[in-house]
Amino acid sequence: MKPIHLAALAVAIASCALAAALVVRADGMEAGSASPIYGVTIPNGYRSWELIAPAHEAPPLDELRVVLGNPVAVQAYRNGTLPFPDGAELAKLAWKHVPSPEFEPASIPGAATTVQFMVKDSRKYAATGGWGFGRFINGKPADEAQHRTCFACHQARVKDHDRVFTRWAP
Amino acid sequence: MKPIHLAALAVAIASCALAAALVVRADGMEAGSASPIYGVTIPNGYRSWELIAPAHEAPPLDELRVVLGNPVAVQAYRNGTLPFPDGAELAKLAWKHVPSPEFEPASIPGAATTVQFMVKDSRKYAATGGWGFGRFINGKPADEAQHRTCFACHQARVKDHDRVFTRWAP
Repeated sequence: MKPIHLAALAVAIASCALAAALVVRADGMEAGSASPIYGVTIPNGYRSWELIAPAHEAPPLDELRVVLGNPVAVQAYRNGTLPFPDGAELAKLAWKHVPSPEFEPASIPGAATTVQFMVKDSRKYAATGGWGFGRFINGKPADEAQHRTCFACHQARVKDHDRVFTRWAP
Repeated sequence: MKPIHLAALAVAIASCALAAALVVRADGMEAGSASPIYGVTIPNGYRSWELIAPAHEAPPLDELRVVLGNPVAVQAYRNGTLPFPDGAELAKLAWKHVPSPEFEPASIPGAATTVQFMVKDSRKYAATGGWGFGRFINGKPADEAQHRTCFACHQARVKDHDRVFTRWAP
């Protein structure tokens, strides 16, 4: 093999390695980072998504929560579109509900507890109303038993709102 | 005056009227839409700003609240920049805290109550730590007496955080 071919081979190998690295980064995936049952992973950039609404969860959970939506979900909310279209994604961020040290009547976010996602893909998740679910604690998916509870509750309580509890905060 | 000059004059007048109309639209201003003392108006598009943090205000106000920030404010939070730079704007949205009809442990937003803004302009608002304040109810500014309370409280309680109560929710 001539030197020029060796050089080309080296470049090709380096390119492949770079491409592989980029694929991993673009997915944001590591082994074990997807939710059981659904295979939902934490979407890149979800913390910058638009506000749908806050909520307060009473004790024993005792949490402050905010639901954010990606642009597809926000557009559906603004237009009153039901069911949500494929590509809609919702994120629910939760923190412990702790007293503000600076303003007595207020409670504010303490430690983050869970981050949860609903991802609409009507073909992939046909058996669960088109929704895939993912619940994450410290960036790691919760176990399968926890994920078995998601759809049953959403289906039983808010089927008529396409299995989504949260309404747009006016 | 020749006809051509009259036509040019008519065009000039029409252009001025259009320009004036555009200025009004760009400002989002109507008579009486600016807060007393500070002259703060409701910023266009604030409902799409990024989440800083939620909060819960105990009775008697009994509200759920969310603070959102414009891109300048969000960048300052992410970088830990204090004081906030000129151009930073914060919005606090508030709703009545009402029980969810669909999930007993949860409380969700009821009717919107107030929308409040803090606008950083270190020269314009030099006398109040660089911040202008605006509190709006149904799109109309609250009265001057309410606006007199803003700075005194922020200055007394959170001067060391550049007069801003809300921290970034992790």
